[in-house]
Amino acid sequence: MALIVQKYGGTSVGSIDRMRNVAARVKRTRDEGNQVVAVVSAMSGITDGLIKMAKEFNETPAEREMDVLLATGEQQSIALVTMALHEAGVEAVSVTGRQAGIYTTGSHTRGRIQDITPDFMRRSLDEGKTLVVAGFQGVTPEGMIHTLGRGGSDLTAIAVAAALKADVCQILTDVDGVYTCDPRIVKNARKLPEISYDEMLEMASSGSKVMQSRSVEFAKKYGVVFEVRSSLNDNPGTLVREEHPAMENVVIRGVSIERSQARVTITGIPDVPGMSGKILGALGEAEINLDMIVSNIAHDDRARHSFTMHSNDLGKAQAALKLVLAEISPDAKIETEAGIAKLSAVGIGMRSHSGVAATMFKALGEAGINIGMISTSEIKIAVTVEETRIEDAARAVHDAFQLDKEPVK
Amino acid sequence: MALIVQKYGGTSVGSIDRMRNVAARVKRTRDEGNQVVAVVSAMSGITDGLIKMAKEFNETPAEREMDVLLATGEQQSIALVTMALHEAGVEAVSVTGRQAGIYTTGSHTRGRIQDITPDFMRRSLDEGKTLVVAGFQGVTPEGMIHTLGRGGSDLTAIAVAAALKADVCQILTDVDGVYTCDPRIVKNARKLPEISYDEMLEMASSGSKVMQSRSVEFAKKYGVVFEVRSSLNDNPGTLVREEHPAMENVVIRGVSIERSQARVTITGIPDVPGMSGKILGALGEAEINLDMIVSNIAHDDRARHSFTMHSNDLGKAQAALKLVLAEISPDAKIETEAGIAKLSAVGIGMRSHSGVAATMFKALGEAGINIGMISTSEIKIAVTVEETRIEDAARAVHDAFQLDKEPVK
Repeated sequence: MALIVQKYGGTSVGSIDRMRNVAARVKRTRDEGNQVVAVVSAMSGITDGLIKMAKEFNETPAEREMDVLLATGEQQSIALVTMALHEAGVEAVSVTGRQAGIYTTGSHTRGRIQDITPDFMRRSLDEGKTLVVAGFQGVTPEGMIHTLGRGGSDLTAIAVAAALKADVCQILTDVDGVYTCDPRIVKNARKLPEISYDEMLEMASSGSKVMQSRSVEFAKKYGVVFEVRSSLNDNPGTLVREEHPAMENVVIRGVSIERSQARVTITGIPDVPGMSGKILGALGEAEINLDMIVSNIAHDDRARHSFTMHSNDLGKAQAALKLVLAEISPDAKIETEAGIAKLSAVGIGMRSHSGVAATMFKALGEAGINIGMISTSEIKIAVTVEETRIEDAARAVHDAFQLDKEPVK
Repeated sequence: MALIVQKYGGTSVGSIDRMRNVAARVKRTRDEGNQVVAVVSAMSGITDGLIKMAKEFNETPAEREMDVLLATGEQQSIALVTMALHEAGVEAVSVTGRQAGIYTTGSHTRGRIQDITPDFMRRSLDEGKTLVVAGFQGVTPEGMIHTLGRGGSDLTAIAVAAALKADVCQILTDVDGVYTCDPRIVKNARKLPEISYDEMLEMASSGSKVMQSRSVEFAKKYGVVFEVRSSLNDNPGTLVREEHPAMENVVIRGVSIERSQARVTITGIPDVPGMSGKILGALGEAEINLDMIVSNIAHDDRARHSFTMHSNDLGKAQAALKLVLAEISPDAKIETEAGIAKLSAVGIGMRSHSGVAATMFKALGEAGINIGMISTSEIKIAVTVEETRIEDAARAVHDAFQLDKEPVK
């Protein structure tokens, strides 16, 4: 008898009928001889409705109270899904974040799971019950309610799987698995049977919407093997796991893209220690998430820094930079470019294969696509291109590495 | 500096604007130099919406899960009202039933407050914060969520006032206080400045809708003086408290009525021990709440039992009685009467004044109203009359005891 954790998102529990579908799937898994722990999100729409009410009082409501408010969404889901299971004849019990023993640290609305005390879950499983656990929530050791931020229910599922030493953790979602590239862009994109944690992390931070990085990080840290699969069918999905030697045979696992990027370049900065720190510090204080960061020395011995960020942040970044540059140097200039996008090729095979960048740049060149900035990690090559050309770029790179073809074992 | 507990019902927090009104009232109370603990219900309509969803799965959903579901209503209210207080510039913090340390016993959906551990509330008050506490909920010592049933938020307010040794407990509602009779029926009904716990209990169990009996019982048990007053204005309301000698000077404190009653009379029962137990047992198993119970022996040495109940229960009662009477006696007959109502006159002064029943019956007789059943307690006389005449009856009795006039001290 295997213990299976299944995570169902807000769309999967978005109506009475969809909850019935979840109940039917849980029942089927149970009838196959497994114990099941379902981790559920708030019904889609509920959280947005609550946020809207809160904003009537304040554009930025107290985060402690937001947590108290938003945690009710998942609490309603667990009760209703449990009732749906009862209707289907399955003995089930709902479990709040607190009852699941999910203890958190960090700030409100962005809690981090510190520890899980799964006594109640363990006892209920031993009594033969199916559990329906609230995703996205936990409590501080003092008993204050925390929510876990975006993608928090995935994190709950993985953490619960780790705490209960589950045999399988299934992240059931509206996509079939992880693809070599977004199938809406690259028609012959292929579903990956498996991907390593590190590749999944690079994909996540490169625009792939499948999962948030920290859930993958948590799984990697605790060695939780999980599967991303569709909640709408029974097709096998993509297994996310620690890398094994055979994985390195594939040079590039996948290609991900991120649109709506902008670039800021600062020139004319004196090349003395501490300058980069001041500039990055100012952008950090303005709460701008930088993505690519490239610095070098120009012909005039002055430093040249380029950053990319979401284009929504461009105005805020310019304002913050004007202030700090006025202090630093009268010669400093800010140059901006919106309307760009990022393409990343990811694969642990890169570590043992040479010529990957060359193949990629050649493919882009042949497609007549200019490369802007370049940034690399051990298992990723990322470039910026004109946003209007990003889909062509994705197809060119996907073809160049023959990602549509099953790799040779 | 006084500590004031204020309870706001679902209508008072039924919209963003109404929550703002609550915040303004709390702020005013605070600005007058008091500490405030606001106990709030779910926004009106929320609970019904949740019940409706639950009933999609089952007409009688699992009570444990109903508690998990319904407790979210108050949790949303406390977060939003706290945000409204922040908007008004009041430092405030929300407190769930669990955080309030409200420990319960009994069954799900009908939890009873067993103990309150007010450490977090006490600490937050000491930090100068205003508290917004979730009504209607608590947790079992094992951490399972309990709701307290109808009128549960009143009970929370009174219990919190007891635990915190509050100076004042205000039950803010849509009525101005407790009246000598329903002012919609008796135009010259008078608001009572005070009423004893026992009188309030008799009024509650006689159809007065102001408060549930068990909240009053809890207040009596722990000696919590509370005030029923309007949430819409600042008029003083009615103080509910332990009786004091001067209270006995008033013969009748008030008159309450209960409509939609029905009577069942059973005749031809052998007058042997155990018969009443069998009959009442059958009605109890059918979950019928009996109100008045009158039994006597008829001229033929056979017993005659009459009961009143809500007319909605009449069909169920007849069915249950048919079964049990078939066992007991071939001669037993069931006689029913719907369309009756109950009028109760309540007052602790009855204990030391004679002739109360005579005054009441004379008044009804002069108004041409027939009396059906009669039932009395130490501080109450109740009669049934034709439902069509109940308002006339109320006015006649109210006049006979001159309840419109301020009593002589």
